Amino acid sequence: MKRKAVCLLSGGLDSTTCLYMARREDYEVTALVVNYGQSHSREIKSAREICTDLDLPFWVVPLTLPWGGSALLDPHLLIPMGRDEKMMQKEIPATYVPARNTIFLSLAASLAEVLGAESIFIGANAIDYSGYPDCRPDYLAAYERMIKFGTKQGFNGKKLKIEAPLLRLSKRTIILLAASLKVPFEKTWSCYQGKEMPCGDCDACRIRQKGFQEAGLEDPLIYYAASPNV
Amino acid sequence: MKRKAVCLLSGGLDSTTCLYMARREDYEVTALVVNYGQSHSREIKSAREICTDLDLPFWVVPLTLPWGGSALLDPHLLIPMGRDEKMMQKEIPATYVPARNTIFLSLAASLAEVLGAESIFIGANAIDYSGYPDCRPDYLAAYERMIKFGTKQGFNGKKLKIEAPLLRLSKRTIILLAASLKVPFEKTWSCYQGKEMPCGDCDACRIRQKGFQEAGLEDPLIYYAASPNV
Repeated sequence: MKRKAVCLLSGGLDSTTCLYMARREDYEVTALVVNYGQSHSREIKSAREICTDLDLPFWVVPLTLPWGGSALLDPHLLIPMGRDEKMMQKEIPATYVPARNTIFLSLAASLAEVLGAESIFIGANAIDYSGYPDCRPDYLAAYERMIKFGTKQGFNGKKLKIEAPLLRLSKRTIILLAASLKVPFEKTWSCYQGKEMPCGDCDACRIRQKGFQEAGLEDPLIYYAASPNV
Repeated sequence: MKRKAVCLLSGGLDSTTCLYMARREDYEVTALVVNYGQSHSREIKSAREICTDLDLPFWVVPLTLPWGGSALLDPHLLIPMGRDEKMMQKEIPATYVPARNTIFLSLAASLAEVLGAESIFIGANAIDYSGYPDCRPDYLAAYERMIKFGTKQGFNGKKLKIEAPLLRLSKRTIILLAASLKVPFEKTWSCYQGKEMPCGDCDACRIRQKGFQEAGLEDPLIYYAASPNV
């Protein structure tokens, strides 16, 4: 019997690459997609397509965070645009969603227990990222320790691993890795704006475009604006 | 300015007592009620009434756990009835909801960050309880440690405390304490069955009835069945 895993999937480049890695490691993967009212709910369409193409079981669950507190949830808060790498590293941006990864991992842990899965895959990345606290190694280690205590599975001595295979990779490396795994770049969605085409100027677009540049590969997505000076 | 706290409220005896304790400690409390499709969604009505009577701000958020895995979520799984204390302590029962408290605390952490609250109150109890792993001191300590890493608040050096003032109290003590705080017992709801009156025979009813017996107080609720031999 194959080992089982739950993979958090947003429809973005990182989580899709993470999903392909979990599959390569021969896990029987179930994807978990969370519709939390994000400005870029367009990514959910991507996530659905990616799973459907792989003939992969997936759940899309709605999540209500009515208190907002993020530019991805509250249209009155501005999504930062045009920031360079230095600015991104200076502070946690307005696109931070309070406790988002903790909520997502907790939903994944619930599903993992029901499936009897031994691992949760998450595409968190602590190198080329926007400075989110819940993408750091210390956080993920503390989460894994906590969930051992908080689940029936952990109580019965069965570990639930948090696997973040992209954690210490640069965006360039992630993109090269994704290319080798034949990740369908054209189906992934990174942009924080929920428009027809990616904006090319939010943090997510800029980090993505810089990664493709550095990897010497072409991003098949067509952007509203290019970001030459990322 | 008053210190702020978020209190997880189910509408049951423990979480209501916990809420009253948080208020006594002079916190400005916001209650968080989660409607997760529980069989006893009747408790949400109780939670609403309790908050309304106290003129307390509260959120009721829907949560979808479509994978089930609990007798409180899946009508095909039986809610254990007629169990004595010894049976309750032997194993984690079918009413365990995978990773429930972890999900609830994560939603509370998200709300706490947005409010700038410094504490999350949870009515978890590790003495007279049903053997849930996510009600134990080790779990709550690990959760507090994890959330420090996973939030902007924690990142900025501001602690988010997990307060479980009932953790090591017997049900008898909780009920005596609740009486001293003038908790409206008649408005609380413990029964796992979602019927007109509490069943008197599920774990929650039995633990509650035994607590009232031992405290020498009368439970104002009228039960379908008494549980003489708890």
